[in-house]
Amino acid sequence: MTGNADDAERVVVLAHEKFPERAKTATGVLKYADYDVVAVLDRDRAGTTAADHRADLPEVPIVESMADAPDADTLLVGIAPIGGGFDDSWRPDVRTAIERGCDVVAGLHYFLADDEEFAALADEHGVDLRDVRKPPEDLTVASGKSADVDAEVVLTVGTDCSVGKMTVALELMEAARERGVDAGFIPTGQTGIMIAGWGNPIDRVISDFTAGAVEEMLLEVGDDYDVLFVEGQGSIVHPAYSAVTCGILHGAMPDSMVLCHAAGREAIHGYEDFALPPIGEYVDLYEGLAAPVHEGDVVAGALNTSGVDGDEAARAAVDDFTDELGAPATDPVRFDADAVLDAILDE
Amino acid sequence: MTGNADDAERVVVLAHEKFPERAKTATGVLKYADYDVVAVLDRDRAGTTAADHRADLPEVPIVESMADAPDADTLLVGIAPIGGGFDDSWRPDVRTAIERGCDVVAGLHYFLADDEEFAALADEHGVDLRDVRKPPEDLTVASGKSADVDAEVVLTVGTDCSVGKMTVALELMEAARERGVDAGFIPTGQTGIMIAGWGNPIDRVISDFTAGAVEEMLLEVGDDYDVLFVEGQGSIVHPAYSAVTCGILHGAMPDSMVLCHAAGREAIHGYEDFALPPIGEYVDLYEGLAAPVHEGDVVAGALNTSGVDGDEAARAAVDDFTDELGAPATDPVRFDADAVLDAILDE
Repeated sequence: MTGNADDAERVVVLAHEKFPERAKTATGVLKYADYDVVAVLDRDRAGTTAADHRADLPEVPIVESMADAPDADTLLVGIAPIGGGFDDSWRPDVRTAIERGCDVVAGLHYFLADDEEFAALADEHGVDLRDVRKPPEDLTVASGKSADVDAEVVLTVGTDCSVGKMTVALELMEAARERGVDAGFIPTGQTGIMIAGWGNPIDRVISDFTAGAVEEMLLEVGDDYDVLFVEGQGSIVHPAYSAVTCGILHGAMPDSMVLCHAAGREAIHGYEDFALPPIGEYVDLYEGLAAPVHEGDVVAGALNTSGVDGDEAARAAVDDFTDELGAPATDPVRFDADAVLDAILDE
Repeated sequence: MTGNADDAERVVVLAHEKFPERAKTATGVLKYADYDVVAVLDRDRAGTTAADHRADLPEVPIVESMADAPDADTLLVGIAPIGGGFDDSWRPDVRTAIERGCDVVAGLHYFLADDEEFAALADEHGVDLRDVRKPPEDLTVASGKSADVDAEVVLTVGTDCSVGKMTVALELMEAARERGVDAGFIPTGQTGIMIAGWGNPIDRVISDFTAGAVEEMLLEVGDDYDVLFVEGQGSIVHPAYSAVTCGILHGAMPDSMVLCHAAGREAIHGYEDFALPPIGEYVDLYEGLAAPVHEGDVVAGALNTSGVDGDEAARAAVDDFTDELGAPATDPVRFDADAVLDAILDE
């Protein structure tokens, strides 16, 4: 899980009592990570496989504890309770993993590296404890060089938080790879970082370094791919998180953008006094704000229809969204991404 | 220097070898702070007064060292070397201040509170060491409530960094007070914080908390004033700092904005590949980005003409800027602020 995402690894994912519905990181890793997930820990579902619970997940065995897991080099905590604490019922699994020589990766507010028992045990066994919510110490301000990378840069932007910006970036990367395009992914949040095996948690960096932390990632891998899908965060009209969104926009300097929206969403989630502006206004805002730093158009859209019952209604919702946007759109989880990918690769 | 800016205090300002040209914090404090500056420390200019060096500064004595300073309760470090380090030639003054029972305030990258000698001495004498670049630990995300405060909120926004957003906010506050308006100031950077005696250094907070840290200040004092001038940071088109700008815009929810620009500036300072867009585009960007969260217009402009020789040429530059902006503008340092203040108070 360190350095390049292509390092082959064998990973066990902890998801006790929450797999799959309440284990978004675990299912994201199973669907999208390049490394091998060799087992899922869920004491309530031991003896089944991930595919038994959701058809789009692989045939990975679910076991009761780390003691029952096959050979591995990493344990990844794939769930987070509300508040981001560490559940002490996981302690024996983390202890066993360290004793078996596994690194342990988590995205909790509670830092494993600050836990005295784990820190001492990790030291003794020569393994790493990686808290992906903790940004690196050596970040700095952007130099304005992101646009110089060889790759075409595609940023997923949103009408709100939690509309699927990470999933869309990953789905589009996979669809591009299926066409033979050398496509990569730039993670900006904790789940994306766990899936990719590297990255900066942009929402946790010092605000002056927001763009710089994105730029650092672009400069690191931007010449290694033909197309890079950058995971966006928040929304440019979000009363709390727009700073992160704006820093990613100017730090990534995208050549094109994909506007992500959730079907039926009419107000900012958790801030219901703030109505979402019309789709066309988002396009103007994102393009207008990008242009003075680096020109980039919203060339396509992605609609999250997970809350819509039935493919027919979902198709109608996508059609409406396409009309409002004036550009190709899809739900890349439910339908195919062909027209959207055409629009991106034509750029 | 803690809590409310109205606490009466007697402050000594350290500005060794740099007063006044290279001591922006010291001169800012002398011009704008509500508390009493009782002496300036500059070993090269001892025996003179601040007014001897610049006509717009008060008759405050300059002395050689803290040992020569009159009775005081705070020592403020009013200069910062490149890199933000602590100059060891200041150590005797800081030591003497602590021994005399003064709090010490600094905006350096080097934190006084982490200096073993100062920390022990401060503990012994019961005084505080305040590093204003260190944000409070208890910040959180914005709740979206800034617009509920009683005060009319005016934000200074910029075409670039270092165009005078803090100075304009302070000049407009003073001009408003001269008209009898109960006006206040919300500081967002280290110099502003030292002048006001409180505040959050927005560029140093975690990016997710950018808007929240501004909102916290608005909610703290927003019902105590009729008009609040919020110090903006950076520029919405800055390749490195736009995240901070955007977070302040949505965190402050201004009722009106004053666009600040430096005469002759054509490219982003330090990022010369990035040309400034036309003035009208800034107006559209700031108003367009503000509107989905809280409607606010750019009602006036402020042009920094400190680089322009002579009042006649400066007046011509202000006239040109006024035409481009399509709203009243001035240089509030060189000329009066009447028309700009009328535009703000009419809102």
